Amino acid sequence: MKIIDGGVTAAKGFLAAGLAAGIKKGNTKDMALVYSEKPCVAAGTFTTNVVKAAPVKWDQHIVYDEPTAQAIVCNSGVANACTGEEGYSYCKETAKIAAEELKISENAVLVASTGVIGKQLPMDLMGQGVRNLVPLLSPTLEAGALAAQSIMTTDTISKEVAVTLEMGGKTVTLGGMCKGSGMIHPNMCTMLGFVTTDAAISKEMLQKALSEVVKDSFNMISVDGDTSTNDTVLLLANGLAGNPEVTEENEDYKAFLEALMYVNTCLAKKIAGDGEGATALFEVKVIGAESKEQAVTLSKSIVTSSLTKAAIYGHDANWGRILCAMGYSGAQFDPEKVDLFFESAAGKIKIIENGVATDYSEDTATKILSEKEVTAIADVKMGDAEATAWGCDLTYDYIKINADYRS
Amino acid sequence: MKIIDGGVTAAKGFLAAGLAAGIKKGNTKDMALVYSEKPCVAAGTFTTNVVKAAPVKWDQHIVYDEPTAQAIVCNSGVANACTGEEGYSYCKETAKIAAEELKISENAVLVASTGVIGKQLPMDLMGQGVRNLVPLLSPTLEAGALAAQSIMTTDTISKEVAVTLEMGGKTVTLGGMCKGSGMIHPNMCTMLGFVTTDAAISKEMLQKALSEVVKDSFNMISVDGDTSTNDTVLLLANGLAGNPEVTEENEDYKAFLEALMYVNTCLAKKIAGDGEGATALFEVKVIGAESKEQAVTLSKSIVTSSLTKAAIYGHDANWGRILCAMGYSGAQFDPEKVDLFFESAAGKIKIIENGVATDYSEDTATKILSEKEVTAIADVKMGDAEATAWGCDLTYDYIKINADYRS
Repeated sequence: MKIIDGGVTAAKGFLAAGLAAGIKKGNTKDMALVYSEKPCVAAGTFTTNVVKAAPVKWDQHIVYDEPTAQAIVCNSGVANACTGEEGYSYCKETAKIAAEELKISENAVLVASTGVIGKQLPMDLMGQGVRNLVPLLSPTLEAGALAAQSIMTTDTISKEVAVTLEMGGKTVTLGGMCKGSGMIHPNMCTMLGFVTTDAAISKEMLQKALSEVVKDSFNMISVDGDTSTNDTVLLLANGLAGNPEVTEENEDYKAFLEALMYVNTCLAKKIAGDGEGATALFEVKVIGAESKEQAVTLSKSIVTSSLTKAAIYGHDANWGRILCAMGYSGAQFDPEKVDLFFESAAGKIKIIENGVATDYSEDTATKILSEKEVTAIADVKMGDAEATAWGCDLTYDYIKINADYRS
Repeated sequence: MKIIDGGVTAAKGFLAAGLAAGIKKGNTKDMALVYSEKPCVAAGTFTTNVVKAAPVKWDQHIVYDEPTAQAIVCNSGVANACTGEEGYSYCKETAKIAAEELKISENAVLVASTGVIGKQLPMDLMGQGVRNLVPLLSPTLEAGALAAQSIMTTDTISKEVAVTLEMGGKTVTLGGMCKGSGMIHPNMCTMLGFVTTDAAISKEMLQKALSEVVKDSFNMISVDGDTSTNDTVLLLANGLAGNPEVTEENEDYKAFLEALMYVNTCLAKKIAGDGEGATALFEVKVIGAESKEQAVTLSKSIVTSSLTKAAIYGHDANWGRILCAMGYSGAQFDPEKVDLFFESAAGKIKIIENGVATDYSEDTATKILSEKEVTAIADVKMGDAEATAWGCDLTYDYIKINADYRS
């Protein structure tokens, strides 16, 4: 696997465009179109929120019931959530306009929205936006980058990644973009991810790969159930790489899964690290767990603890907050068996051994916690399961009261 | 029931004191002592965190195993949590010193701590603090107020309340103090509550009343399981009011329960409203629920949603965020049946009817949301159960990006 430049247009046959359609104020880019020259098999994972936005319902229908898809229309500014029948009709209308312009079926057009909940889409602007996007479609990396910028809401940076890998002697490309900000809580804003690939793979195996990978990537920056009304990850595969079609869990599937894991994890980490003013990506590994589920519960509880995140910002080895977050997670473990480490480019240090502070150097701990990427590793010594979760530090003034609490 | 001035010294026979023992920097008050002239029956509710602080373990032993208690020593600055055997020995030592000075048994002394986790108590300062506190003990309201100030950590105001009621022809007094800040999440800091009463009531009925009341008061400003290592509510009753001892669920018990509910709810709301820079107490009522459990889950999910709290700060009727928070709460309901109201001293307005926005006036909604106490009422139309939760708005600069998101 090789990391390359680009995003959704990196794979063969994928074009993209982005522009300001007037949905957001101030000529800000707010619509993106992704299109494949060839029909794609499509996979998707969607929000588990009881309240599902109209575009989620539309896309579920396409992904679950249709054999192929060929385009994604995404807007920012208005989420088209809690909009009833009218909102759903606008998904269909958007797909219809895109289908006419692209000369494909409306049932091959996926839609996604992010922004304010409860407001109807301005269909005149949406329709004109789609019509203006189609002539702009381009296979260049720049076009992919424009699309990535157009789906941003509170994001401070656009988020793209692409890789190549070998499958059956052919070079296959995977590229993606996403939006979402890890600022406060993952539930604070919609997470949208779009990944394209020229791999030849069956619809069944594509969905299997995506479902497998989302669990350990995007879902690890999100608290259980704390998904927005719009959260969506879509994966399109058009087969143009010419590799033998993957229809079972063979070596090619494993290589594809590994590359997809890298792409999704990379995108998820970009979301986690994109806190307004965040100074560090905060990674939490729980090892020695009894089960994967326990490791997930513990790592997510730590990474979403505001007190812990404030301590990371303060470069303060306030390990008590980590033990506390583990304690209220709902997972059972023996606090008096826990070892805790901090690790970064500056080194690794053991802070707690069997639940009690080691004689560690606060200076060394502060140095390790002052890096741009900081990892906490908790060993609960119960088994072999592990999980990794991602977040960011909390750097805002109002947090200082906690970051400085100990000094 | 009548609301009166005062706190822990309001009831007959209770004395208190507070001072700066040097545990916190800068001559800040950090130790309090509450003492009853007569042995009390004691009830307590404690953190459900897997990691329990040493004082929680000590107090559980006193409340569960001893017939009476007579004093509470509380310090702020150091939480005495994650401190192992050494930490527990300091609870015993603190109790022993207090017992010697007060000439009571060390098993009649409850202790409580709040502050930094993982640090050992400075026992020399603690011991000297206890010795200095005893001669300062006084039954005045001022002494109660000093004690309330001495248990504060990130609190911006001290928190006291007292009431009188009639029980069996006698005037009974209930008074309390608490600490804790609803700034970000209830799990951000320890919540301590101490309530004293001169009611004559059996230990069994006292615990029954406290357990009943805590569910609907202190626990409704806390997310499930998100308790700190130290969370504690203690209730002492010395019987000096001379009412016939309550030993069963009679009319006197009901009157006592009602007064205790008022005292605890009042203290809990003081914690919820004490956000750093908070401009409003945010109350959430879920009505028409299928079960109490469902109503609790939904109301807590709304009141702890940062997006919703930021919208309250922005006086923005962004009801989509409330529906979203209900949707990810884990409770099942039909989003298309929900009615939502906002209410305050400025009036009441229906924002959603059957899941869709009404034709409400944004101006009126803004006016209602601009008051110091704002209530959101969600009717899920499934049954008769209801629950109320309390929090505050989020007012900090970093939140502005969300508060202003819609404009």
